Amino acid sequence: MKKNITMVNVSDKPITQRRAVAMAEVSMRPETLRIIMQGKVKKGDVLAVSTLAGILAAKKTKDLICLCHPIDFSHIDISFSFKKNLLLIRAEVSGAQRTGFEMEALTAASVAALNVYDMCKYLDKSMSIEVKLLEKEGGKSGKFKRK
Amino acid sequence: MKKNITMVNVSDKPITQRRAVAMAEVSMRPETLRIIMQGKVKKGDVLAVSTLAGILAAKKTKDLICLCHPIDFSHIDISFSFKKNLLLIRAEVSGAQRTGFEMEALTAASVAALNVYDMCKYLDKSMSIEVKLLEKEGGKSGKFKRK
Amino acid sequence: MKKNITMVNVSDKPITQRRAVAMAEVSMRPETLRIIMQGKVKKGDVLAVSTLAGILAAKKTKDLICLCHPIDFSHIDISFSFKKNLLLIRAEVSGAQRTGFEMEALTAASVAALNVYDMCKYLDKSMSIEVKLLEKEGGKSGKFKRK
Amino acid sequence: MKKNITMVNVSDKPITQRRAVAMAEVSMRPETLRIIMQGKVKKGDVLAVSTLAGILAAKKTKDLICLCHPIDFSHIDISFSFKKNLLLIRAEVSGAQRTGFEMEALTAASVAALNVYDMCKYLDKSMSIEVKLLEKEGGKSGKFKRK
Amino acid sequence: MKKNITMVNVSDKPITQRRAVAMAEVSMRPETLRIIMQGKVKKGDVLAVSTLAGILAAKKTKDLICLCHPIDFSHIDISFSFKKNLLLIRAEVSGAQRTGFEMEALTAASVAALNVYDMCKYLDKSMSIEVKLLEKEGGKSGKFKRK
Amino acid sequence: MKKNITMVNVSDKPITQRRAVAMAEVSMRPETLRIIMQGKVKKGDVLAVSTLAGILAAKKTKDLICLCHPIDFSHIDISFSFKKNLLLIRAEVSGAQRTGFEMEALTAASVAALNVYDMCKYLDKSMSIEVKLLEKEGGKSGKFKRK
Repeated sequence: MKKNITMVNVSDKPITQRRAVAMAEVSMRPETLRIIMQGKVKKGDVLAVSTLAGILAAKKTKDLICLCHPIDFSHIDISFSFKKNLLLIRAEVSGAQRTGFEMEALTAASVAALNVYDMCKYLDKSMSIEVKLLEKEGGKSGKFKRK
Repeated sequence: MKKNITMVNVSDKPITQRRAVAMAEVSMRPETLRIIMQGKVKKGDVLAVSTLAGILAAKKTKDLICLCHPIDFSHIDISFSFKKNLLLIRAEVSGAQRTGFEMEALTAASVAALNVYDMCKYLDKSMSIEVKLLEKEGGKSGKFKRK
Repeated sequence: MKKNITMVNVSDKPITQRRAVAMAEVSMRPETLRIIMQGKVKKGDVLAVSTLAGILAAKKTKDLICLCHPIDFSHIDISFSFKKNLLLIRAEVSGAQRTGFEMEALTAASVAALNVYDMCKYLDKSMSIEVKLLEKEGGKSGKFKRK
Repeated sequence: MKKNITMVNVSDKPITQRRAVAMAEVSMRPETLRIIMQGKVKKGDVLAVSTLAGILAAKKTKDLICLCHPIDFSHIDISFSFKKNLLLIRAEVSGAQRTGFEMEALTAASVAALNVYDMCKYLDKSMSIEVKLLEKEGGKSGKFKRK
Repeated sequence: MKKNITMVNVSDKPITQRRAVAMAEVSMRPETLRIIMQGKVKKGDVLAVSTLAGILAAKKTKDLICLCHPIDFSHIDISFSFKKNLLLIRAEVSGAQRTGFEMEALTAASVAALNVYDMCKYLDKSMSIEVKLLEKEGGKSGKFKRK
Repeated sequence: MKKNITMVNVSDKPITQRRAVAMAEVSMRPETLRIIMQGKVKKGDVLAVSTLAGILAAKKTKDLICLCHPIDFSHIDISFSFKKNLLLIRAEVSGAQRTGFEMEALTAASVAALNVYDMCKYLDKSMSIEVKLLEKEGGKSGKFKRK
């Protein structure tokens, strides 16, 4: 008898170069965004904390995503942009493995955004976070590019 | 000289009963939602995995949210509901501490949602996740209730 | 001077396909087994929790087994069977590495069983757990099969 | 809708002094036991490694036992005895908390035993481990003492 | 029989306010120090990374220091100063517990310094790190102040 | 816009055999050193605990050193020597990877030394720890040997 919960067997998959890009959009009041950009948030440098939190979270993906394989990546890059009331956090993860980095990129972007929330929640608790996969390449399922 | 990054000092805050509720909405095709509800997702029981991943993530909050205090909670509850093309994940965390559980609830909801994404990404990589705080009570800043 | 504690040097071992299977037997009252099978345990779905706990523990083996090498696996499978007053938990781990997965399989089975204990201890604290290696293949020491 | 997996709410339980004792019995060939006692195991000092692994595992209980509350203990003690072909590992955990230390003691004993297996598996892969709760006191459910 | 490794039993110690301060001195070429201060290190903002790494490490003390009790702190503060060829990292940890924060402060300072080394090792691998306790107060053993 | 914090991209680096050696020197009163060597430290066997703590810390390097790549090693060796008032801890890490093991060796040596401090701080809180890289080979930057 087997419980209906399974990790995919990737033993037969070849090791190929893979890459995934995720985006987290933190929606906030323009005033909050201004305080972040002016570096005046009380707990300190929001983008530095967010970047490091994202990088560290990517390295913990296998512990957070139950059915994820334990795999190591060769590179992660976190960058930011602003659009009206949005702080955009882009996380790109790449490396040569038997399975893709979608979850590493999404985890990095999500946790980077949660750290923004943590540092700014004294200003506004109604911020919200939206996370999605932007791109993915490498592996049998081929390319994905969000429209 | 001090780097502009600081953890709030909560030494003088009293220990009070606190509670926070967060929500993650996973937006997906109705077809994907149906496959989840029918229990036919290839990796298995999505809601069971999501629940446990959320509970475990809440216990790891201090490692994921850099400037969060290390605090233990007395209870966490994860529940689900469906609305058209949305799978709603509600995480409630409570306990008696010097500081609140907003980040525990948001982290639980986010990671619970990321596990849904992981299990269903073979069906649809364009799912997106939205996370927000619904309620918060206890502590000096008082009650918060999202409109 | 060297303290008498050493990790084996596996630098010269070739990377080969390896597999290990462990079993944990949770001995309990037939009544407890019946409550598990009827899905009526108060904390919830025992086999789902046990499965996930086993998978996650396997990924933490290097932190739990002090002299274990840090190695990643390609697959883990947890399954259950029942025999009189025994709940049997079988954990199989495989992948291509320089050293074997015996400890990953044994750790997965042990922790899967401990989670069964945790969920059912309100019914009966006198349950006991027996853990052993069933099979192992790949690597210089060759095949092992428990009689 | 709620998935059938829940952590018990201990908010209303009083903080009381609690204690739990677990035992792991590693069954092995007398020859293997002799090599351990003579300190001639290749990887080194088995009892030192086993002790530390048990202590460290107890501190990780909340990450390994999914529905366990995050609680800190005031003391842990690991000790050993020998009986024919058995190496007995006793783990005792105590502290003042809202919930008991059964899982901390069982986790410590199990992981301590798994480290013995790891260090001696080159001598004999057919060793087996049996784990059980010996005693438990403090808390509403009262005393438990294994017969 | 007991292995000669023990965690101190702190059950009977009262919960009191405690504080510990540690210092790490990273010795480096004046040229390296200048590159750090000008913010021109290739991997980025050294002091931001060092600060966060120190804070996160303090929260992991119980996993790194084998015989340390699992305790939570209320505050940690990392600050920097420069003296000729030295980058000085000061870590202060405080809270109300049954045992002191010496190891939390020393761990924070050490890991903060190791992150400086990691980011600057492309400039100079001969940097060295010296770590010591500066102050400690609270608890039965009383005040300690380094001369 | 990118925050000035980056992980080096090692995708194009070849996998080569690498090795790093670090040293931690714990400076203490000769009396403290004598108590360690006589095995009379209250918490127990200092060198056993220090060895294991160093090995386990090396396996956690990626979580402690923010911008470190997640890489696995094939071997780690911790050894000790004494010189007047110094306890010397040597950590050597090796394996085949795209990037070097300097940080694994330095982290192992640092944490091994912190555990010595923890066990002996009841004798003397004024001990200090000095950590440095001794050797490094493999990889593009070539050999490093400390003078």
